[in-house]
Amino acid sequence: MKISRIDHLGIAVKSIDEVLPYFEEVLGLKCYAIEEVADQKVKTAFLKVGEVKLELLEPTSEESAVAKFMANGGRGVHHVAFAIEDGVANALAECDEKGIRLIDKAPRPGAEQMMIAFLHPKSTAGILTELCEKA
Amino acid sequence: MKISRIDHLGIAVKSIDEVLPYFEEVLGLKCYAIEEVADQKVKTAFLKVGEVKLELLEPTSEESAVAKFMANGGRGVHHVAFAIEDGVANALAECDEKGIRLIDKAPRPGAEQMMIAFLHPKSTAGILTELCEKA
Repeated sequence: MKISRIDHLGIAVKSIDEVLPYFEEVLGLKCYAIEEVADQKVKTAFLKVGEVKLELLEPTSEESAVAKFMANGGRGVHHVAFAIEDGVANALAECDEKGIRLIDKAPRPGAEQMMIAFLHPKSTAGILTELCEKA
Repeated sequence: MKISRIDHLGIAVKSIDEVLPYFEEVLGLKCYAIEEVADQKVKTAFLKVGEVKLELLEPTSEESAVAKFMANGGRGVHHVAFAIEDGVANALAECDEKGIRLIDKAPRPGAEQMMIAFLHPKSTAGILTELCEKA
């Protein structure tokens, strides 16, 4: 698999409205998009720092994986997403072959018109890991 | 404060030796330095992905903040470090003025000849946040 860069960090937050002033007024970053991802039951806000996006994730339902992460005491970075140059499907096949536990067996649509797939943190040094590419 | 990019992600691991094959052989990243930071009671391994470094942090003592993070069930990303263009001391003063809780009141030496300071996650959307610059 060929990783070009970290595409984004997914950050679990209770309320985008509450934390956005910190990111914008203290860190000086700029929110350039807000999008609801119905599939994942989250509202997302995007900011950019260098080549990496920060994706703030606010659960819109208690059923959301992000809500569960926070209910279990999880805070801050929820996942790390790598931009894959040679295809997420190829990367998944390679991971599977190397014994990495997959959450998604095939790429699926994510926010920002990306195709995404998650690897299980048990296989990835405890980091919930997303592989992504432009659809 | 002027942030140019994410300098690194600090990643808590029990054993660098155990997880390095995942980062190198599965993700295809390259470890370019291993360094012990006696001050923080950690052994660190550095890899690079795009403009961001991954800093694997293995505690060398149970007194280490990283050991405590893991003892409390923390996994994966331990902190996010931003590269500050206009000085960490300035950034700290600005944060203090804006009511952000500081862990370090003044920059101190970190790994890789950086000057660093931490902000408290209570003020930073739950993300343990490091500000850093080349010493």
